[in-house]
Amino acid sequence: MPDTIRTAPSVTRKDLFHLPDGVIYLDGNSLGPLPKSVTARTQAMMTDEWGEMLIRGWNGAGWFAQPGRLGDRIGRLIGAPEGTVMVGDTLSIKVYQALAAALALRPDRRVVLSDSGNFPTDLYMARGLLELLGDDYELRVVAPEEAAGAIGPDVAAVMLTEVDYRTGRRHDMAGITRAAQEAGAVMIWDLAHSAGAFPVDLEGSGCEFAVGCTYKYLNGGPGAPAFIYVRPDLADVAAPTLQGWLGHDAPFAFDLDYRPAGGIARMRVGTPPVIQMTALEEALGVWDGVAMTEVRAAAVALMEQFIADVEARCPQLTLASPRDPEARGSQVSFRFDEGYAAMQALIERGVIGDFRAPDIMRFGFTPLYLDADDVTAAVDVLETVLRDELWQDPKYKARAAVT
Amino acid sequence: MPDTIRTAPSVTRKDLFHLPDGVIYLDGNSLGPLPKSVTARTQAMMTDEWGEMLIRGWNGAGWFAQPGRLGDRIGRLIGAPEGTVMVGDTLSIKVYQALAAALALRPDRRVVLSDSGNFPTDLYMARGLLELLGDDYELRVVAPEEAAGAIGPDVAAVMLTEVDYRTGRRHDMAGITRAAQEAGAVMIWDLAHSAGAFPVDLEGSGCEFAVGCTYKYLNGGPGAPAFIYVRPDLADVAAPTLQGWLGHDAPFAFDLDYRPAGGIARMRVGTPPVIQMTALEEALGVWDGVAMTEVRAAAVALMEQFIADVEARCPQLTLASPRDPEARGSQVSFRFDEGYAAMQALIERGVIGDFRAPDIMRFGFTPLYLDADDVTAAVDVLETVLRDELWQDPKYKARAAVT
Repeated sequence: MPDTIRTAPSVTRKDLFHLPDGVIYLDGNSLGPLPKSVTARTQAMMTDEWGEMLIRGWNGAGWFAQPGRLGDRIGRLIGAPEGTVMVGDTLSIKVYQALAAALALRPDRRVVLSDSGNFPTDLYMARGLLELLGDDYELRVVAPEEAAGAIGPDVAAVMLTEVDYRTGRRHDMAGITRAAQEAGAVMIWDLAHSAGAFPVDLEGSGCEFAVGCTYKYLNGGPGAPAFIYVRPDLADVAAPTLQGWLGHDAPFAFDLDYRPAGGIARMRVGTPPVIQMTALEEALGVWDGVAMTEVRAAAVALMEQFIADVEARCPQLTLASPRDPEARGSQVSFRFDEGYAAMQALIERGVIGDFRAPDIMRFGFTPLYLDADDVTAAVDVLETVLRDELWQDPKYKARAAVT
Repeated sequence: MPDTIRTAPSVTRKDLFHLPDGVIYLDGNSLGPLPKSVTARTQAMMTDEWGEMLIRGWNGAGWFAQPGRLGDRIGRLIGAPEGTVMVGDTLSIKVYQALAAALALRPDRRVVLSDSGNFPTDLYMARGLLELLGDDYELRVVAPEEAAGAIGPDVAAVMLTEVDYRTGRRHDMAGITRAAQEAGAVMIWDLAHSAGAFPVDLEGSGCEFAVGCTYKYLNGGPGAPAFIYVRPDLADVAAPTLQGWLGHDAPFAFDLDYRPAGGIARMRVGTPPVIQMTALEEALGVWDGVAMTEVRAAAVALMEQFIADVEARCPQLTLASPRDPEARGSQVSFRFDEGYAAMQALIERGVIGDFRAPDIMRFGFTPLYLDADDVTAAVDVLETVLRDELWQDPKYKARAAVT
């Protein structure tokens, strides 16, 4: 690999994270680790705010404004202006909301275009929505490489996840958005594997909607809330569809009729989970003073090192990710027929990645808490597991509920 | 009031709750207080589970099974059998899911019947759903006392909140459910102000769906997740509509097509907020060994004392709640033209209730952490605020974001 890649500046700030002894964590693309200060902050929120302020915390402790405040902080990491991102609910819910709003903008069209590399829940939620809308609506799922070419004049919305959760293959966000809009379709990006992984230029892309989650590269904790972005010119137009009381223009007037709030606030639904939101708010502090371009450069260096070392030392594995780093997110996947068992053997030896059916071993690269020495150590273990066929042990073949 | 009511056995367990000094908390119907053990449990979950187990927590710490486990615990408090209640999302989302499932069961009918005493978000969510379904669907909102009589042969679903959030007026759950079903409609109950307030016999009522929240009488913390109940015979039939990946029959097969899980698991949507769920799980411990019938008897005693004392000492106020305790939930409301300012004056003096437009002063009665002496002390303060017109101070008239 080029020396310039090997020498990308370090952005490692391991001291900010709780990292278990003896573990090399290559699964931050699934669940980020605990930022150390989150525990104390969340405890203080419970004792000093919930405990002492009780109901008064909604105003006095800023709980009511928290979802928008968090949206603005996430916006800075994904190229979205202030007031265009709202945090809440789960990614499945936010996908539903974005797609319903997109379809309302194109009432004369009936096709939602997506690809088979999308995360299944996006497709499931879309199907549920289209079933309500009626038989003439269609979810058209094509291969990822065919997505851009499949945007015909009947397509109301293009709904894609930028980075494929299995292979790490990355779509051309600007190019596909342009193609969608030239065909008169609305563009929705799912940034689940993008936010916090590399620079995203949402505003520059011109896409109408984006959604994402905060428990992967943003380290918000298991089940941390999702976010939704609405392009500024649509903020007062987009239909919330899931029109909960906190998206009302005057929630405490308790009108019987719904009247959406101006701007991104209309994408709020019900009462936000304040404890979980507070954990996320504190977790976002690890990004203070971090340049996403430097995170990306460091991640590419780690990935290039990993690919080169694995290909040199583990001939049993086949690269499943794009070789060109520009075409890849912040993960590297290899195919191996016994990938499930091999991953269990790795995990037992402290190298935590994960497995995606049918045969993908997935490794995430998160330079805030991973460095080149970690990568070297991980490949050492991987080489041993494969060379000595440690995955043959029957105990590694029993499937767990969550894989 | 009858002596038998005054002498209801105490169920007070104040030692289990974090109750601020100098505060009498009559707003547990809006946000329950912090059970003391929640902070340590939640901290341990973050450090020992998220921090140490990382992604392995989904299996190893039982996070994956948590929403159903919590559902079963809540089920025991609301008369629902095991495997019929699922926890997740917000109440707004669960209302949407229940109503969509109800309408799918009555494809030939087009009317949703609700009442003007329903919490507005239920009506807003319904309107959003009906707009997707098309122009021939109608949300019909009648006065609460007219609900039972308005269930005609065109009604697909009756959707009511058992206890009116303003007045505490309680519907006849068994009677209205019977009327709905005799008319061929599906019954949905919102138990926001019921669960943890008094005995609920969901199974006995025969209703098809119920939803509720856990941050009021169940003390789960601000924004604690909601729950949904599906009658057992419908569990494998009901359409989830918001069909997220965790409600899939095999979520980790990552199929492109959705196939709902058997039973209540299909009502799961996205990744659950584990920190918030853990706080709720610990909070539910305060109910161990508590008989809901005794909680109800104690609550009625406190409410009867409060009404009698307020009517004797505060002639400025007019009772807005039903006088018959059987027709009332676990709150008492009084009307007062300057109710907003008077409530602010009360809060500043440590008596915390809340206000609902246009003129309702609302007081919740939660005998796990309130006793007769608290009620006496609260009325003392209320009498002073009203007699001396302390609410006239201009500082009490400025409206806060959350009222």
